[in-house]
Amino acid sequence: MKHVAIREVSLRDGLQIEKPIPLSAKLELLAAVAATGVCEVEACAFVSPSKVPSMADAAELAAQLHNYPDIDFSALVASAGGARRAVAAGLRSIEYVVSPSDAFSQANVGRSSKEATEQIDEIVAIAHDSDVTVEVIVATAWDCPFAGPTPPRRVLDIAATARDRGVDRFSVADTIGTTTPGRVSSLIAQLRPVIGDLPLGGHFHNTRGAGLASAYAAVSAGVTRLDASVGGLGGCPFAPGATGNIATEDLVYLLRDSDIHVDIDLQAAITAAHVARSVVGHDLPGALLRAGDRIRT
Amino acid sequence: MKHVAIREVSLRDGLQIEKPIPLSAKLELLAAVAATGVCEVEACAFVSPSKVPSMADAAELAAQLHNYPDIDFSALVASAGGARRAVAAGLRSIEYVVSPSDAFSQANVGRSSKEATEQIDEIVAIAHDSDVTVEVIVATAWDCPFAGPTPPRRVLDIAATARDRGVDRFSVADTIGTTTPGRVSSLIAQLRPVIGDLPLGGHFHNTRGAGLASAYAAVSAGVTRLDASVGGLGGCPFAPGATGNIATEDLVYLLRDSDIHVDIDLQAAITAAHVARSVVGHDLPGALLRAGDRIRT
Repeated sequence: MKHVAIREVSLRDGLQIEKPIPLSAKLELLAAVAATGVCEVEACAFVSPSKVPSMADAAELAAQLHNYPDIDFSALVASAGGARRAVAAGLRSIEYVVSPSDAFSQANVGRSSKEATEQIDEIVAIAHDSDVTVEVIVATAWDCPFAGPTPPRRVLDIAATARDRGVDRFSVADTIGTTTPGRVSSLIAQLRPVIGDLPLGGHFHNTRGAGLASAYAAVSAGVTRLDASVGGLGGCPFAPGATGNIATEDLVYLLRDSDIHVDIDLQAAITAAHVARSVVGHDLPGALLRAGDRIRT
Repeated sequence: MKHVAIREVSLRDGLQIEKPIPLSAKLELLAAVAATGVCEVEACAFVSPSKVPSMADAAELAAQLHNYPDIDFSALVASAGGARRAVAAGLRSIEYVVSPSDAFSQANVGRSSKEATEQIDEIVAIAHDSDVTVEVIVATAWDCPFAGPTPPRRVLDIAATARDRGVDRFSVADTIGTTTPGRVSSLIAQLRPVIGDLPLGGHFHNTRGAGLASAYAAVSAGVTRLDASVGGLGGCPFAPGATGNIATEDLVYLLRDSDIHVDIDLQAAITAAHVARSVVGHDLPGALLRAGDRIRT
């Protein structure tokens, strides 16, 4: 039976565009997420607090993570400085985001795609010096909100650089929720020979309804790690009207009933989605929040 | 390039559980749907007006269909009487629904699955006497809201009977929106050798978020016809909290960007979804109603 590792990203990507919520609310969400049995959680981001105010308490949150010793927590970073802060805060895994689009890269981190790619070296050095794992995530891997379709060649080039620089994991992100199963299968098929044995992950948004279909296509094409957010919490600040990440509970349902093993308990994920809705104080798009499991217990 | 025929079902399955709307509103929706370039439209149902009041004007609507000579219109029927009324009203295609679950069949049409299956003979005779096409649709093909999972064997038996009785098309419906890509691939793989050359269709609901993923899996497994409803209009009266049919515009987007050809214009489908929202007077779940195409024109 195939196994897919789901990383819960509600605490970072999910909350990123929300108004900041108190640390106590984040800890309430974290407790609900931890109760699902999930093995990996993206906890926070070490980025500019003025750009992303909801992540300003990253170090305070990181100080609480020792309460869940069985979970591999990660933090997103966009610079060497962020990587140093994440390592100093005790994170054991960091994610470094690179976009193949200069326009997105400039808007997001204030440097070109090439400059961001060249920084992989320094990020890896900072992380590996402290035995911290590094994942490179290619943002806007299929489309950029400014530049349009991303040439697959640029994603493959970043992947080759990441592999050569010794990163531990690699993933591709449909940041603005535009991709589809056919485009996913195509890119993953091209990526696999480039990255070799590196664990390959996918990050999808359901903005145009195709998020779960794309995630399933990714798994069929060889992706073994997927990001998801309880309730579908999250959205992209650059795509007006965008709905959120694929919902953890909807993904777990789909994979479970497609004979793909995951570590997450479905009912606990639905409960966590209710907690997510409660801490942000508005409705969320996850389907199982409304419909529930097909199996009534 | 692969081609998939999309049948627009908003006028029947979409409106089925809505409060009845005036014939003029249906004609407004029909005009918007016809403008998408769609080749097949499920226009109405010839069923008990007391059970499904929103379909009571089926004959009046059928009398207007000559205005769209390029569209193949179909009507759903649940009995020989319904088939006679559909043929008398001038429909050139009828869909006869059979459920493999006795519990669902009794609740839906007041007879057992076996009795409903045996009636295929009479339905085919009524239709073919007037050169009308017959499609057999297996409802609750994966799960029944009363009996739980449907044994695939029962679907295959109905398919074999339908084939032997000379039906023109065959399809499987996820009536309550519970199936997933893995289960779809499995059932379609078993069905294909049974139905031989008959055109094979799929009907999916997005109740648990997996509708588009299941539709894509169906196409990958050999389905060449898919039902969809603009805006995702529709729902299942037996599944509380259920969301609707897969949205036509979301399906068109997904297939177009997966290099699968469809007859429907995406922008016209989004416009029709807005019309659907307007005629029923409430919000609809379709994703592109909010996000729009990735390609801005």
